[in-house]
Amino acid sequence: MAKAPVLTPRAEDFPRWYQEVVAKAQLAESGPVRGTMVIRPYAYAIWEHMQAAVDSRIKAAGAENAYFPLLIPQSYLTREAEHVEGFSPELAVVTIAGGKELEEPVVVRPTSETVIGEYMAKWVQSYRDLPLLLNQWANVVRWEMRTRLFLRTTEFLWQEGHCAHSTQDDGHRYAQRILDDVYADFMIKELAIPVLRGVKTRRERFPGAINTLSCESMMGDGKALQMGTSHELGQNFARAFDIGYLDADGTQQLCWTTSWGVSTRMMGGLIMCHGDDSGLRVPPRVAGTQVVVMVVRDDDAGSVAAAARRTVEELADAGVRVRLDGEVGTAFGRRATDWELKGVPVRIELGPRDVEGGEATVVRRDVGGKFPLPLAELAARIPGILTEVQEALLAEATARQLGSTAEVNTVEAAIEAGKVGFARVPFDLLGEEGEDRLAAHTITVRCLQTAEGEVPDDGDAPGLVAIVARAY
Amino acid sequence: MAKAPVLTPRAEDFPRWYQEVVAKAQLAESGPVRGTMVIRPYAYAIWEHMQAAVDSRIKAAGAENAYFPLLIPQSYLTREAEHVEGFSPELAVVTIAGGKELEEPVVVRPTSETVIGEYMAKWVQSYRDLPLLLNQWANVVRWEMRTRLFLRTTEFLWQEGHCAHSTQDDGHRYAQRILDDVYADFMIKELAIPVLRGVKTRRERFPGAINTLSCESMMGDGKALQMGTSHELGQNFARAFDIGYLDADGTQQLCWTTSWGVSTRMMGGLIMCHGDDSGLRVPPRVAGTQVVVMVVRDDDAGSVAAAARRTVEELADAGVRVRLDGEVGTAFGRRATDWELKGVPVRIELGPRDVEGGEATVVRRDVGGKFPLPLAELAARIPGILTEVQEALLAEATARQLGSTAEVNTVEAAIEAGKVGFARVPFDLLGEEGEDRLAAHTITVRCLQTAEGEVPDDGDAPGLVAIVARAY
Repeated sequence: MAKAPVLTPRAEDFPRWYQEVVAKAQLAESGPVRGTMVIRPYAYAIWEHMQAAVDSRIKAAGAENAYFPLLIPQSYLTREAEHVEGFSPELAVVTIAGGKELEEPVVVRPTSETVIGEYMAKWVQSYRDLPLLLNQWANVVRWEMRTRLFLRTTEFLWQEGHCAHSTQDDGHRYAQRILDDVYADFMIKELAIPVLRGVKTRRERFPGAINTLSCESMMGDGKALQMGTSHELGQNFARAFDIGYLDADGTQQLCWTTSWGVSTRMMGGLIMCHGDDSGLRVPPRVAGTQVVVMVVRDDDAGSVAAAARRTVEELADAGVRVRLDGEVGTAFGRRATDWELKGVPVRIELGPRDVEGGEATVVRRDVGGKFPLPLAELAARIPGILTEVQEALLAEATARQLGSTAEVNTVEAAIEAGKVGFARVPFDLLGEEGEDRLAAHTITVRCLQTAEGEVPDDGDAPGLVAIVARAY
Repeated sequence: MAKAPVLTPRAEDFPRWYQEVVAKAQLAESGPVRGTMVIRPYAYAIWEHMQAAVDSRIKAAGAENAYFPLLIPQSYLTREAEHVEGFSPELAVVTIAGGKELEEPVVVRPTSETVIGEYMAKWVQSYRDLPLLLNQWANVVRWEMRTRLFLRTTEFLWQEGHCAHSTQDDGHRYAQRILDDVYADFMIKELAIPVLRGVKTRRERFPGAINTLSCESMMGDGKALQMGTSHELGQNFARAFDIGYLDADGTQQLCWTTSWGVSTRMMGGLIMCHGDDSGLRVPPRVAGTQVVVMVVRDDDAGSVAAAARRTVEELADAGVRVRLDGEVGTAFGRRATDWELKGVPVRIELGPRDVEGGEATVVRRDVGGKFPLPLAELAARIPGILTEVQEALLAEATARQLGSTAEVNTVEAAIEAGKVGFARVPFDLLGEEGEDRLAAHTITVRCLQTAEGEVPDDGDAPGLVAIVARAY
């Protein structure tokens, strides 16, 4: 009798598969207030590793962490016209506090350009104060209509960088540096997710930006996920918040600002990029648990549990994030299925016969299949195996993306290709009118690249290639 | 001509000194919404080191991090009678979201017992699921009437642990373990702040708790600061949220819950415990910058700047968090005063004559005074000097606390002593009526200890000693 699958197969119903993975791997649950989310410990541990890896890159790029208030006077939001238009429909507004109606309602931050702009204006006086490179790790609230755990939630966790620069060129180069050295580098090396980098079309820009750079990735169903963005805000916010400086010649100048962010949405990307029909597959570099050592069953002397504990200690000493599963009261098959569902990169199974023979059975979550390894070699071999898993996940995702990207030369072909994967189409051919036609099929331009696949300096330049796809 | 002091002397006006340190050392500013706070990079870096040190201890105590929503249905708060009574006056309420009035208003979390209780009820089914040990790092909002940066702000950052236990005894032991192994250990070893541990009187308990354990520290003006608390919530929240489990005998039981937290308030404690009339003194273990290497002035060949850069590299390689100050365009005295204000533990000053002689001038922020050290020995010697600074700060704070604590045997004497420091008075003598008399002088019982200075298992036991003081 064939086992009933634990999950709906991806090919049958990808959104349902996603929902089931999130629930059954105990990653997250809906919160009590519509659209909010509870992030459970297993997923939060992954998020912590993501945070650490992004944070160290942000610091290497010279930005400093700070913290700005959650609550923003409503009037701040209205100072930049496009910004308020973009965010007004999504605001959560506090009208009562301390038992009284507030004179001016305050909004729960949907993003912090405005409040940070107010302080930049105070802190920046002279060209010597520039660039001012700030970042914060925070929660933000946007009252979204259609929510999905991790991908689009009313409240989410993110980092938001906010910088003031003396020239447009400096802002441009920094926005690009964040995209390359922080986001893309992190996504490729730590999340094992390949990314396409480019600029957004006018239609898809951040409200208030003059240029939005973006990292886009392909999910398991061929759809795109915007994984992170880096915005050039021109002088729009500098003008609205009066962020200026005295230059070396003693002339008063207006700053150029940038902002950039990645969020818990990346967890959704990790699930949808690497997950398979058995569940999640966590890239070892961000896994809270990289290896689980399972006692299959023990003998009367408890020698298997003892060997498992020793193995756990040796692996921990070797720097591996390892966990013991000695729950022999629960059927082995059920436990193994559960670790598979949770996507722990490597399982080490130990039974009485293994221990007797001085061996363990090792299972790689990414490719499956079991192989024996001498107990004495585990601590030396497992770190290398984790590196192999990491590389294999990236290679697999890269191969899928390349295999599901079509080169097309008509809008019709772009629409057909965009229904199942990515299409590359000349933007000169597409244009804004072409974007409208794509939109009728819920296909959008994810980003524009140069013919060589690079991020263009000028999104309005001729000869750019549009990456089009359906997107989350 | 004597230099005008940078700060109001502490002895003259301690609260004003505090305000000036916070502003001039660029630690924090008021936010635009009343009572909120902007934490600037220099202070936030210290907070990050605090977080890391607390977080690793929390993990060592077996708790796992998770994240629960900011927004809580108003009805949740009302389920536990004392809890709602305690927090109602301080709530910020969202009534409008997504452009519409909400059917049920939602509150911005003032603390998360209620929302976490709701999920614990789902996640705990059997005794095998216990204890459930959760923690989150989050922002909370309490609409306080009188605010002061770091010490009491409308929004603050904290960690809040929330746990479900199978027995009262297990909850009691865990609450105590958090107080001892996480909070007190962290405060003493990392913040260099001595703490008194004890239980709160009924009057001072957390709303909804049956027992509140607390860490109390003495500030530079002899007043107390509550640095962290760990609560036994009995079965109050378990009953309100139906957190129950099937025990090993198959009988349905109610859980016992605990909660515990420390916040950005500890930054206020750090400032007020270690600060002196020249500014902040940051304990090296939590300092974002442990050492600043200053170019006093350079020669024509730029050999001082070169030596300074080499020193920075060598110290960084030795694991020291070090920063270069080569701003020779600004007067040396002004820069030195500024680093003193910011409380960087060690300054290394380099001028042309120092470099020529192969030496540097080293200044310890805690004790002042300059001494020479060979450049070649800096990397080897500085880590030890940082340890000495750390120990000296703790010793100084401990000496002050001991020297400003009186043993008294009457309420009158407790009032007199409590005006300038701490008093230890038998609680049997004081009682609840005595607490009222103290309160008339804004003096409170900070905590109750056993005669031996230990945390009592039973706050109602006879023979306990009350620590009384004025408090922030």
